[in-house]
Amino acid sequence: MSSKIRMGMVGGGIDAFIGAVHRIAANIDGQIELVCGAFSSNPEKTKATADALFLNPNRAYPTFQDMILKEKLLPENERMQVVSIVTPNHLHFEPAKMALENGFHVICDKPVTFSLAEAIELEKIVTKTGLVFALTHTYTGYPMLKEAKYLIKTGKLGKIRKVVVEYPQGWLSTNLETSGQKQADWRTDPKRAGISCCMGDIGTHAENLAEFVTGLHITEVCADLSTFVEGRLLDDDGNVLIRFENGAKGVLHASQISAGEENNINIRVYGEKGGLQWQQKDNNSLTIMLLDNPVEILRTGGPGLSSKAAPANTRVPAGHPEGYLEAFANIYRNFAFAVRAYNNGIKHDFDTFDFPQIDAGIRGMLFVEKVVESSKKNAWVKM
Amino acid sequence: MSSKIRMGMVGGGIDAFIGAVHRIAANIDGQIELVCGAFSSNPEKTKATADALFLNPNRAYPTFQDMILKEKLLPENERMQVVSIVTPNHLHFEPAKMALENGFHVICDKPVTFSLAEAIELEKIVTKTGLVFALTHTYTGYPMLKEAKYLIKTGKLGKIRKVVVEYPQGWLSTNLETSGQKQADWRTDPKRAGISCCMGDIGTHAENLAEFVTGLHITEVCADLSTFVEGRLLDDDGNVLIRFENGAKGVLHASQISAGEENNINIRVYGEKGGLQWQQKDNNSLTIMLLDNPVEILRTGGPGLSSKAAPANTRVPAGHPEGYLEAFANIYRNFAFAVRAYNNGIKHDFDTFDFPQIDAGIRGMLFVEKVVESSKKNAWVKM
Amino acid sequence: MSSKIRMGMVGGGIDAFIGAVHRIAANIDGQIELVCGAFSSNPEKTKATADALFLNPNRAYPTFQDMILKEKLLPENERMQVVSIVTPNHLHFEPAKMALENGFHVICDKPVTFSLAEAIELEKIVTKTGLVFALTHTYTGYPMLKEAKYLIKTGKLGKIRKVVVEYPQGWLSTNLETSGQKQADWRTDPKRAGISCCMGDIGTHAENLAEFVTGLHITEVCADLSTFVEGRLLDDDGNVLIRFENGAKGVLHASQISAGEENNINIRVYGEKGGLQWQQKDNNSLTIMLLDNPVEILRTGGPGLSSKAAPANTRVPAGHPEGYLEAFANIYRNFAFAVRAYNNGIKHDFDTFDFPQIDAGIRGMLFVEKVVESSKKNAWVKM
Amino acid sequence: MSSKIRMGMVGGGIDAFIGAVHRIAANIDGQIELVCGAFSSNPEKTKATADALFLNPNRAYPTFQDMILKEKLLPENERMQVVSIVTPNHLHFEPAKMALENGFHVICDKPVTFSLAEAIELEKIVTKTGLVFALTHTYTGYPMLKEAKYLIKTGKLGKIRKVVVEYPQGWLSTNLETSGQKQADWRTDPKRAGISCCMGDIGTHAENLAEFVTGLHITEVCADLSTFVEGRLLDDDGNVLIRFENGAKGVLHASQISAGEENNINIRVYGEKGGLQWQQKDNNSLTIMLLDNPVEILRTGGPGLSSKAAPANTRVPAGHPEGYLEAFANIYRNFAFAVRAYNNGIKHDFDTFDFPQIDAGIRGMLFVEKVVESSKKNAWVKM
Repeated sequence: MSSKIRMGMVGGGIDAFIGAVHRIAANIDGQIELVCGAFSSNPEKTKATADALFLNPNRAYPTFQDMILKEKLLPENERMQVVSIVTPNHLHFEPAKMALENGFHVICDKPVTFSLAEAIELEKIVTKTGLVFALTHTYTGYPMLKEAKYLIKTGKLGKIRKVVVEYPQGWLSTNLETSGQKQADWRTDPKRAGISCCMGDIGTHAENLAEFVTGLHITEVCADLSTFVEGRLLDDDGNVLIRFENGAKGVLHASQISAGEENNINIRVYGEKGGLQWQQKDNNSLTIMLLDNPVEILRTGGPGLSSKAAPANTRVPAGHPEGYLEAFANIYRNFAFAVRAYNNGIKHDFDTFDFPQIDAGIRGMLFVEKVVESSKKNAWVKM
Repeated sequence: MSSKIRMGMVGGGIDAFIGAVHRIAANIDGQIELVCGAFSSNPEKTKATADALFLNPNRAYPTFQDMILKEKLLPENERMQVVSIVTPNHLHFEPAKMALENGFHVICDKPVTFSLAEAIELEKIVTKTGLVFALTHTYTGYPMLKEAKYLIKTGKLGKIRKVVVEYPQGWLSTNLETSGQKQADWRTDPKRAGISCCMGDIGTHAENLAEFVTGLHITEVCADLSTFVEGRLLDDDGNVLIRFENGAKGVLHASQISAGEENNINIRVYGEKGGLQWQQKDNNSLTIMLLDNPVEILRTGGPGLSSKAAPANTRVPAGHPEGYLEAFANIYRNFAFAVRAYNNGIKHDFDTFDFPQIDAGIRGMLFVEKVVESSKKNAWVKM
Repeated sequence: MSSKIRMGMVGGGIDAFIGAVHRIAANIDGQIELVCGAFSSNPEKTKATADALFLNPNRAYPTFQDMILKEKLLPENERMQVVSIVTPNHLHFEPAKMALENGFHVICDKPVTFSLAEAIELEKIVTKTGLVFALTHTYTGYPMLKEAKYLIKTGKLGKIRKVVVEYPQGWLSTNLETSGQKQADWRTDPKRAGISCCMGDIGTHAENLAEFVTGLHITEVCADLSTFVEGRLLDDDGNVLIRFENGAKGVLHASQISAGEENNINIRVYGEKGGLQWQQKDNNSLTIMLLDNPVEILRTGGPGLSSKAAPANTRVPAGHPEGYLEAFANIYRNFAFAVRAYNNGIKHDFDTFDFPQIDAGIRGMLFVEKVVESSKKNAWVKM
Repeated sequence: MSSKIRMGMVGGGIDAFIGAVHRIAANIDGQIELVCGAFSSNPEKTKATADALFLNPNRAYPTFQDMILKEKLLPENERMQVVSIVTPNHLHFEPAKMALENGFHVICDKPVTFSLAEAIELEKIVTKTGLVFALTHTYTGYPMLKEAKYLIKTGKLGKIRKVVVEYPQGWLSTNLETSGQKQADWRTDPKRAGISCCMGDIGTHAENLAEFVTGLHITEVCADLSTFVEGRLLDDDGNVLIRFENGAKGVLHASQISAGEENNINIRVYGEKGGLQWQQKDNNSLTIMLLDNPVEILRTGGPGLSSKAAPANTRVPAGHPEGYLEAFANIYRNFAFAVRAYNNGIKHDFDTFDFPQIDAGIRGMLFVEKVVESSKKNAWVKM
């Protein structure tokens, strides 16, 4: 009798947003069991969180250091096997480093670290330990984006010429951070978020989406970052011209002041033979537009899919909408499969398991550094 | 330290569709733990299912009778507390009856039973035992339908005049049942499905949706049921004129031969002061159309919601799509809350917990009987 | 040097709705020139209308009788050639009859007459005179519906099984007729509209659309007509089960009290091999759903069209939306081509010119009579 | 008895695209009559065009010079009053200049001229003559964009922060110009199109739309223009960062190689208090998103409109789609009204008549010059 993968969590106290999302994502497929956590710097909150999650109170730890050290002492068939890190950006690197160095696999929220330097350092540790490291770039978990990636990779659209990728939000249209709203508070604080708010938080999602779907690296950026809300210390909007390694051109823009927008990340890719479109708002559809042909709508779970990845990451028949949490869960499930494979002796190459890894984290941090630099210089910079 | 609600499952062997859906729904919110099951009449399959689900092999039972009797013998803090029934229609009544009579709460797939007579009998047992009984009419789990129900109840649309409710599918456009496809096989078999295929399987969803959202009972039906696929023994399409207790009129149609349709159940309701629209394909939007006003789009997690039920059944901020599995999970979660309340001494009235109960099952079976009768008579019948 | 077709108009005074639409439709393609009119029973209004339309005041006639008689006396190369009738229903038959009997072709608004008896009488006159008679069932002018008709006719969907056709409006949700609103006034008046308001005005559009697109006659109806607004003398809503000559079944519903709805006439047709969908709101798209294939979206002016009729009735490249007025204009243009052909010696068969003729009018009036009868009897009736 | 405005046309021979569009636009509202033309440099084609349009063959002129001079000799109540110019870009200036200098009002296709220098020269002539000059920036004719402009002007969105405007097309994804396709041929030819293909043809539409709707001037651009199709001499794609006079930022991109795209020009504007969205594909809807409010959908002809301009430029009740040709017709109709006003003694200020004038042409040509310069320099330039 095998058992679920046992997970500990760093961050995700009872009133956090993303911690709850990670727990749902871990729950959905019944592959992972949350067994312990260091949920908050506030011990009362950690205790309350553990209680709400039906955890053994002895496994609600005051600090991540404590969690890692104590869990290590537990019998192998009881102790946690993986650590999920869901803290603000400035608190990713230390727990990830310590977890890996103590033999625990890691699944970490994005952006991967506070700075590019940390990300590069972390990559070394991942490589050295050979453990599984997953980065929760959620959108790559959507089946229709996996299909899009496959279609482009296999030449359906021909050589790629143009990419438009957007992440519009409106939730920071006012200075929400002064109201005590927790999410706004740390994201707009340079000490916790890093050198960028909008580009770090959601620009990286857009960058990741573009590179994931096209399989191409961005090589040059010309960015115009803005802070529209008075008193805010970091950018809340950014428009970026992009150039890709193969000569393709594009536009990437992300915003937290696009009033009225929810989270409608979307992408359009055009090649010599056709184009495609996807948006989170209608995540179960992928629009394929081949030259001289009627538009086709591919659907999650529907007919005419070419990739194996799309159906493999789908749970229910077409027309029963899967969404954000299922996309997120695909990362957790595939991470769990990789960990299980590791336990069965597979080392060092987890690409076939289809989840974002440390290299995606490096790209994201590089992107943030370069768009900030470009915007300051008012000029194109190489990436 | 409290613990998750412990659940056993009847049906849902490894290759079943709806069993897996129930398990995901039970997993999502971390309120319920699957501890045992009688997954199949085939013991090998039951064993394999238990194994795939990381269950204790000793708790994979050959029959539901065995499961109920053996679990009852386990210590109270270990044994299952609720039974989930996910078998074909003809195998709902017996396990539900036995579970209830042995003190286990029940959550059951729809339609509630094989026949109206069984449903009425089951209602008596539920009443007598005072236990929690939930019926998984999934669509009532959608936040935007809870909002719709609330808006109508509180008079936003004025007196209701017209209802259009549809459930179009195309998956039985060919005689799939002869290919060995398991879902098609039993649904088209009068011995397992009952007197109707289309109306029993999805017509009941449409009927439930109409009565749930409007808060009105259908009182008369005039039905035209058809079997379009040669050799099929039950209806695969049905069109029904409906009349409601308050004088409202409407149309209900469901189909399994609407080629190309996925599962786009949808409803439109019109009253003296305005109308509303909802469809599963865009489940996170609710369109409100008040006379002499621009159309408004309410959104899951978005601004301007009036009900408490919609936000209470939402997990993530607006724009991160929730879907079918989350709607299903809302029923499981609310059922779990009711069971917990029962354990804390609340008896006999679980309406505030907001999930479909045995009365919805009775209405569904009555609807099936009456539309079959109406179609045979080619005439209106009272319901 | 040939010239435009010269047209006279009956009805369409300055504040009428549909008269202005007919004039725009006649103008668009530059094939027709309005030269005279009997626009109103009020001579002042007729004069003002002629003035606003830059007509010769001598050709603004007090009555249609006067117009027909006086124009007949003009030189052949000057006098009107066709008469457009845009009056309320009770004033269609007489001017149509007199125009035809005096050698003028006729284009007439729908429903064709006040009663079925009149329609049958009119058909005899059309046949006897051999002149061109067009009925402005606008929706058949949409290119994507012409494509739909062609695809069904040539077997793309296989044998047709199910049809859903709807015409929801909300403009009569209140008793607008008591406010002096002209359109509401006559449509709800049995003396001018006939035996039905909703079914006569828009139910006939739905019926026409279903028969046009499928090429099948409706043979049985079971209708439930209602008058929801107090004091109103005719129906303002109707739900109808329909059966077609080939065994197909369907639902037709039309409403003037579906609060918030504009004019979103729409149709879905399902056959053995696939289905299709069209709605006026997105009139330039036709959704094709073939079994086991991704959905395809055909577009006005776009690639992949099979019919000749669709491109022949399109003016601008794909993506420049054409709409209601262009659909209407297609009827006028094709009527003009038929008249020109008649002048060149083609008689008696104008089917190839692709516009609705007197037979569509007969079908519409028969439909109205039968749904009224069915609703009164509360039973199915043959049609 | 007044009469229609008499119009002559330069260009628009029988196989041209935009000439036919201008004629339809001029026809729709019955305000304008085409009386003569110099349709082509090929006299046979001019003759055939005149014939197809039922014109007097004596008024089919071999050259625009001939047309202007000969028409001037006709009696005042017979000769043309306005000239419509629908030739390629390099043939706008000369006929416009000559028409104006001979007392004829002008309506001209965009971009206004071949170069900025010509545009500036033309503005002087317009000013000097005091005649009416209209530029057919079609999209400003859409009622919902007039509403958008009004809402922004009256502060509904607060101070504007961000603008995203796009014009994606795919029709030049291959080297169509080598196939003899006329539209592709001249647009990709620097001698006839000017210094830009994509930016001149449709980038100017996007620029015009952004400045029209926001009422703000673009003051800086950073452009990345590309030629993706081998052998092509001008740009077929362009991505531009933009900055506005009030500090707003934005993105403008236009493309002729976005394979699969039709003509879906669209705009999104975000201010401190809310945002709005419009796209040509659904031109009769305007999405309004106010902070902390549900999204509202305003509709052509629908309730809740604030501007007078939207209803004034609408012909039919909500739900009967108007489209591109009606938007175009709004420019012609408003131009006709201005000409009639001129004839009634109003001079020099036609702003209230609501159509694009020479200043919009200057802005467009300036935009083209500056994006070409910016792209060459790989840097921001002031505009």
